[in-house]
Amino acid sequence: MENIGKKDWAISSSRIPFHSNGEEPEFVSHDKVAILNTNNQDAEIEIFVFYEDESPVSFKEIKVEPQRLKKIRFNDLIDPTAMKLERNYSCFIQSNINVVIQFSRLNTGIAENAEMSTMAFPVDT
Amino acid sequence: MENIGKKDWAISSSRIPFHSNGEEPEFVSHDKVAILNTNNQDAEIEIFVFYEDESPVSFKEIKVEPQRLKKIRFNDLIDPTAMKLERNYSCFIQSNINVVIQFSRLNTGIAENAEMSTMAFPVDT
Amino acid sequence: MENIGKKDWAISSSRIPFHSNGEEPEFVSHDKVAILNTNNQDAEIEIFVFYEDESPVSFKEIKVEPQRLKKIRFNDLIDPTAMKLERNYSCFIQSNINVVIQFSRLNTGIAENAEMSTMAFPVDT
Amino acid sequence: MENIGKKDWAISSSRIPFHSNGEEPEFVSHDKVAILNTNNQDAEIEIFVFYEDESPVSFKEIKVEPQRLKKIRFNDLIDPTAMKLERNYSCFIQSNINVVIQFSRLNTGIAENAEMSTMAFPVDT
Repeated sequence: MENIGKKDWAISSSRIPFHSNGEEPEFVSHDKVAILNTNNQDAEIEIFVFYEDESPVSFKEIKVEPQRLKKIRFNDLIDPTAMKLERNYSCFIQSNINVVIQFSRLNTGIAENAEMSTMAFPVDT
Repeated sequence: MENIGKKDWAISSSRIPFHSNGEEPEFVSHDKVAILNTNNQDAEIEIFVFYEDESPVSFKEIKVEPQRLKKIRFNDLIDPTAMKLERNYSCFIQSNINVVIQFSRLNTGIAENAEMSTMAFPVDT
Repeated sequence: MENIGKKDWAISSSRIPFHSNGEEPEFVSHDKVAILNTNNQDAEIEIFVFYEDESPVSFKEIKVEPQRLKKIRFNDLIDPTAMKLERNYSCFIQSNINVVIQFSRLNTGIAENAEMSTMAFPVDT
Repeated sequence: MENIGKKDWAISSSRIPFHSNGEEPEFVSHDKVAILNTNNQDAEIEIFVFYEDESPVSFKEIKVEPQRLKKIRFNDLIDPTAMKLERNYSCFIQSNINVVIQFSRLNTGIAENAEMSTMAFPVDT
């Protein structure tokens, strides 16, 4: 059950909503990636964020423990710089070993608390 | 029309909601997988559930009859241990023959009864 | 721009909702497949529907004209037998030439008129 | 981090909703594609739109700058002809270099402001 997934994943359409209606922290609008590492060693992850009108930024030193799931909220990525709200972005996620990555959004700023989720695109390398 | 799909599938972002507003059992919040077996023999399925902070658990001896669809509600997986509510998990699903697996969620605990569905990731083996 | 897509596609998790709140026909709850044929000849389609507790049924003689999109509402499949409402089903869709297939659902029986869409699984053959 | 994605992508099930309830321009109903270009050169994009009952139309000379994301609203495609509202369409998107394409819809004409997003189908060429 080792080696499941791919090393490289991409999502082109993301946006952290600004408005939130719910309670902190569960119902605050957010974009998240869920990373599954089925291997017996840590997965070392780097997230590259691309914008419409600015150079890409890289967030490093993210680890997923062996045989664990890790959920990363884009709102929490603050080093070297915080993600801005209400701004379109794409991301390319690179791991040193195979993982499975899914992307989801909770938008609580509109009446229906829209929940959306899709598998990321598994890049062939 | 035999041999359609893959043996191994993965979903990284799952969570059984705690709150429900609807009638039992149709509108109780749930996560489900739908497994399609187009073959002329039983598909024998094992589901491995991964958590953020605990060792993975395996649910065995799940069968899908020949040329049938089977829907499995994660709320109903109780042996060797029940799935906990409001807890993030991933799953890796392994079949002895090719099947097609789709994942869906109904969240009736928020006003809009959000319904979400995505194909699982077909692992190449 | 010929030969785009795959011949065989599968969806495992479908269900035609019974309750509807909207006006006929646009807001009646339905499951649909959208088939894109970019080729210069007709695409001849056969849809196999699988159930949880009954033998599969095949719907034949569905054509998609050259360089056209065709949307098929499962509610409208009535020959050799009508699709039943509120019943889980999967489908396997086979074309004689490459096409692109996407699945979508509109559920108007619950307050939020949930709209869901996912690419079908492109079967390798 | 060059060369991520595919050159050719397809989406079969699209429709620009007519009714809108929100403020301009953020909450006007729309269909969008998000194109991520991780390369060090411009991506030159052509979008072919297919209909149910009319010949396909091609929208040319769309560029995505190096290492940038570009979101294209189908409502804004007006040359050689404007996209019509409330009409089903498919699209095939062709790039001269590898890109990652995701499709999303915001439908504000129904009570719940449904938000939907799915990766486009990566065509093997």
